Amino acid sequence: MPKNLQILLDNRPKGEATASNFRLTSSDTPELQDGQVLVKHHYLSLDPYMRGRMNDSKSYAVPQALGQVMGGGTVGEVIESKSPKFAVGDKVVGMGGWQQYGIFNAAQPGALRKVDTTHVPLSHYLGAVGMPGVTAWYGLIKIIEPQAGQTVVVSAATGAVGSAVGALAKARGARAVGIAGGPDKCKYAVEELGFDACIDYKLYKDAASLSAALKEACPKGIDGYFENVGGMVLDAVLPCMNDFGRIAVCGMIAGYDGKPLSLANPALILTCRLKIQGFIVSEHMEVWPEALKELGTLVGTGKLRPRESVAQGLEAAPEAFLGLLKGKNFGKQLVKLI
Amino acid sequence: MPKNLQILLDNRPKGEATASNFRLTSSDTPELQDGQVLVKHHYLSLDPYMRGRMNDSKSYAVPQALGQVMGGGTVGEVIESKSPKFAVGDKVVGMGGWQQYGIFNAAQPGALRKVDTTHVPLSHYLGAVGMPGVTAWYGLIKIIEPQAGQTVVVSAATGAVGSAVGALAKARGARAVGIAGGPDKCKYAVEELGFDACIDYKLYKDAASLSAALKEACPKGIDGYFENVGGMVLDAVLPCMNDFGRIAVCGMIAGYDGKPLSLANPALILTCRLKIQGFIVSEHMEVWPEALKELGTLVGTGKLRPRESVAQGLEAAPEAFLGLLKGKNFGKQLVKLI
Repeated sequence: MPKNLQILLDNRPKGEATASNFRLTSSDTPELQDGQVLVKHHYLSLDPYMRGRMNDSKSYAVPQALGQVMGGGTVGEVIESKSPKFAVGDKVVGMGGWQQYGIFNAAQPGALRKVDTTHVPLSHYLGAVGMPGVTAWYGLIKIIEPQAGQTVVVSAATGAVGSAVGALAKARGARAVGIAGGPDKCKYAVEELGFDACIDYKLYKDAASLSAALKEACPKGIDGYFENVGGMVLDAVLPCMNDFGRIAVCGMIAGYDGKPLSLANPALILTCRLKIQGFIVSEHMEVWPEALKELGTLVGTGKLRPRESVAQGLEAAPEAFLGLLKGKNFGKQLVKLI
Repeated sequence: MPKNLQILLDNRPKGEATASNFRLTSSDTPELQDGQVLVKHHYLSLDPYMRGRMNDSKSYAVPQALGQVMGGGTVGEVIESKSPKFAVGDKVVGMGGWQQYGIFNAAQPGALRKVDTTHVPLSHYLGAVGMPGVTAWYGLIKIIEPQAGQTVVVSAATGAVGSAVGALAKARGARAVGIAGGPDKCKYAVEELGFDACIDYKLYKDAASLSAALKEACPKGIDGYFENVGGMVLDAVLPCMNDFGRIAVCGMIAGYDGKPLSLANPALILTCRLKIQGFIVSEHMEVWPEALKELGTLVGTGKLRPRESVAQGLEAAPEAFLGLLKGKNFGKQLVKLI
């Protein structure tokens, strides 16, 4: 059996997460039981939600257990199967965790899913045609419900979720405006991802000046905001919201390390009759088939060209993850394991 | 024609509203034109939304014009009519403003509505069976959507809106918990209004201690919160919300004077997958008939026994209104004009 490199959660962060919270180890891959499938992981997905699970406090996800392999989405290839549902060579997506090999129980519904890589590269099943894509789809379609001609703003616009929000909004005839960090990301958002405009939040020192820039980029105001970051960006967006605007709260990465960030003027919820709604995509499995179908078509037809940041080797995962929390990634953050 | 005492908005508040913002004047009542109706006002309604209209800044309502009679709901009796739709002696409700007499255009839809005082006292058409009652109904039924066995919390629980929220929640089998200022109001909420518990927020010096008291009064957590006050109370409620909780934002009176009050931990919107929605009842006229029917029945059958604070004479309106903004009223604040 192959040696399996793994990364465990060794201890919980005190404030900011650091590389010392993780521990690299290796183990033998146990022999397969009946019904089990052994997958060689090609890519590991790194996602902001993992930071929440590193804490022991109340969160939407069960805390990651100490001393256990970090959880996470993976794509790979079946290299051994004791289940009639999967054959050696099948390309699959599952929650394999931060390790080189994963053993899956094929009988458990949803544990492992076979995917077609004819038109969609395998890695995209961790991004645009996977959990982040469906996240974008749910927040945009079910909470923001954009109408043609309306304006939708998304933060972390070049990320796995943000880029899908932009493409889905454009497909519905909405104006899509991104917020991202740095000129390269903003250029990419407009030239490659099809955003109508993209604002570099790093150019603005406070919420008021960022808000002024948003007003300029959104001359008809903002009807829908897809929130990935929180903090100053949310404070800047709120005064630009049109009456009856909708805000889908998908993430607040700005406050994941350290103490909670406040919201400056919640009274705008009343004066503008806003709806603000938090959601977690794993609680809405009923939309996945419809969402994945649209996302697959957008990617297959080149209307959504997601960018990826790929770190090489499992050992690189902790640093890549800490960079993601600081916005250092550019597009979907992956770790290549082969 | 009778002399008509009136109160105008003389100048806009700088920070806290004061009596000097208003001006008492009197005018002759002009002769009626065809289609017009002259109403002698019995009661004027004082409501928190009026504070927002005194500002010139962006709000959901058009700012109150300077030098004009303050707007406001009124009930009274038709004393002269040049419309076939209304007869002398009819009891009516309308937006007559801060004055003793009002002239209404009977042809304008919704300007004046005849009411039946057989089972419901006239003044209640400004409260439980009027705009505040429908406000409670809309926020509770359409946004919070309480289920039997769930827990609903309302701030300003003994006010016109809050007391109706309590009765409507109880009618749906929910646990109703109020928040009010002072032991008398809390006693009234439980003994007369049917709340299961009521918390005196004045006993708690910060959001954390108020939150602890709420947790005790809501052992199964909070599923729906009807927000009338904002500020510290909202910060105390948020950590007690159950997953998928709903917050209807009807008012944030704590921040009406002076600068906006912040929200300490908006990330809870995500971790608890909350829905927070602001609304204004006048934008949902379609629910008024259904809501008024239920509210009229609750009052007529004694299941909702709204309390009133009545100031005597138009001259008393400014002080009564300023008291309302500070929570000095106990129940629906009215001004008796006869």
